[in-house]
Amino acid sequence: MTAPLASWNEGPAKQAIMAFVKETADQASPKFVDPLARIATFDQDGTTWVEQPAYAQMMFTFHQLGVMAAKDPKLKGVEPFKTVLSGDREAIAKLTVPELLKIVALTHSGTTTDVFQEIAHDWITTAQHPRFQRLYTDLVYEPMLELMQYLRANGYKTFIVTGGGQDFVRTYSERVYGVPRDQVVGSAGGTTFGYDASGRAILTKDPKVLWIDDKTAKPVDIHLMIGRRPVMAFGNSDGDKHMLEYTQGGDGARFMLLVHHDDAVREYAYGPESVMSPFSDALMAQARQRGWVVASMKNDWKRIFAWE
Amino acid sequence: MTAPLASWNEGPAKQAIMAFVKETADQASPKFVDPLARIATFDQDGTTWVEQPAYAQMMFTFHQLGVMAAKDPKLKGVEPFKTVLSGDREAIAKLTVPELLKIVALTHSGTTTDVFQEIAHDWITTAQHPRFQRLYTDLVYEPMLELMQYLRANGYKTFIVTGGGQDFVRTYSERVYGVPRDQVVGSAGGTTFGYDASGRAILTKDPKVLWIDDKTAKPVDIHLMIGRRPVMAFGNSDGDKHMLEYTQGGDGARFMLLVHHDDAVREYAYGPESVMSPFSDALMAQARQRGWVVASMKNDWKRIFAWE
Repeated sequence: MTAPLASWNEGPAKQAIMAFVKETADQASPKFVDPLARIATFDQDGTTWVEQPAYAQMMFTFHQLGVMAAKDPKLKGVEPFKTVLSGDREAIAKLTVPELLKIVALTHSGTTTDVFQEIAHDWITTAQHPRFQRLYTDLVYEPMLELMQYLRANGYKTFIVTGGGQDFVRTYSERVYGVPRDQVVGSAGGTTFGYDASGRAILTKDPKVLWIDDKTAKPVDIHLMIGRRPVMAFGNSDGDKHMLEYTQGGDGARFMLLVHHDDAVREYAYGPESVMSPFSDALMAQARQRGWVVASMKNDWKRIFAWE
Repeated sequence: MTAPLASWNEGPAKQAIMAFVKETADQASPKFVDPLARIATFDQDGTTWVEQPAYAQMMFTFHQLGVMAAKDPKLKGVEPFKTVLSGDREAIAKLTVPELLKIVALTHSGTTTDVFQEIAHDWITTAQHPRFQRLYTDLVYEPMLELMQYLRANGYKTFIVTGGGQDFVRTYSERVYGVPRDQVVGSAGGTTFGYDASGRAILTKDPKVLWIDDKTAKPVDIHLMIGRRPVMAFGNSDGDKHMLEYTQGGDGARFMLLVHHDDAVREYAYGPESVMSPFSDALMAQARQRGWVVASMKNDWKRIFAWE
């Protein structure tokens, strides 16, 4: 048996995690937490896997748009699809949130939930990351996987709470993270109940976005889908701030951690200046003031990927 | 150790359940189901506990309205609150769905989620059923509790999928059913993130109903919250028809069961004529045609309540 958190360097982050988990699982400790309350929530992009240079979910979305445009060339003349299909990175980077949502709505609707699952599965098991030339699921952080396993071994129920789409992440969450589909909370779209030609009950994905699971929506969706304040929460950016605040707002022992991307050699280094998932100076100040652990990828992680 | 399903009489319903569970948990069987896919969903009102003469959730709602009207007497002059507060049962029975939703919205909002939980907990641990003069949680059907335990012992993950409110049912689901809060899918209202006077992160319940988890909303919400088609589904009325159809619509082994209320002596007898949770003749015909098991409370259940 390997020691827990084997890919973490000895240091304050690893020590803080292990001390917290031991105390909350120890019935004799004043910090003991009832097993039913042992809820740990993990942001995904930038917290459990690589999010640069673009979210995997966005790469999938743009790929799907290409597939759809090949069948329906009219899309090539209609904005905002035209911009994405042009491949002009500078123009794509300037797309607004409503424009991006329009693309998400188009590419994530019109099929049954069963067919969508196959489409997402096909992409995630073949698409490669532009820098690492590996599957996106190979770019999961080994220290965070070990952390999830360690928490589960100590009676914690682990949840993904992501801005990514639930229907997308659920196609690989069990295989990659050991997180069952019902423990994935993410951005969500509507579905409509109906029957196929043979009378079989189906759900069809609507072009309606129900919610984007980011910022204040994270605690709202945690309440909606999980129904408990987490005891531990893990994030990496301003988008996770409210989830960590909500976690800390509960009574008793609580643990909050932010992953800091400061390793340009092995992964990426980015902070307040990042367009995607900025880690603002205000967030860093808040972490220090509130006792949140900041894990440095450079210093706290012995290795980042399983294949290193 | 007690034998499984001890409160079920020997008969076709018990036999069908046990045969299905054994086969789906047996790796050598062609009906074997991967443990991750072993999802079982249970309607609550009329399926796992008494729903007559009124849903517990509705009794709670009316009680809350009384508490609120004592503090804010103006409510006594405003419809539809006035009708409920009058206690006129005939008039109350005639309230429309939009009127009832208005009452639900008022009584289920304006507090933090933490405070609401305490309010619901106080009610469910003290309020008594008018006929049985017992707590509503004493009116859970022992055969269904045994069934949930039996399924969990065979690797099934058990979920409640109810028209009742998630925030209400989650206050007792763990204690009463052994179902963790995150495995309760129900009707839901919005919440808003904010901070209390001390800066602690809180969620406040909005007077906005997000969805009523009934009929076609059940499969929609199962997809949204669980992300998998159930392998087994249990209901008792037309409101569960679509959940059972959705369950049956998946590939491989599936099991659908309807509880039939035909025991006026020990519980209640009602069918197509019931205003609440009707079990229509069309549903009965569909059950027979599609091979859904219909469990007779009178014939299939040795005892109904644990205290009998």
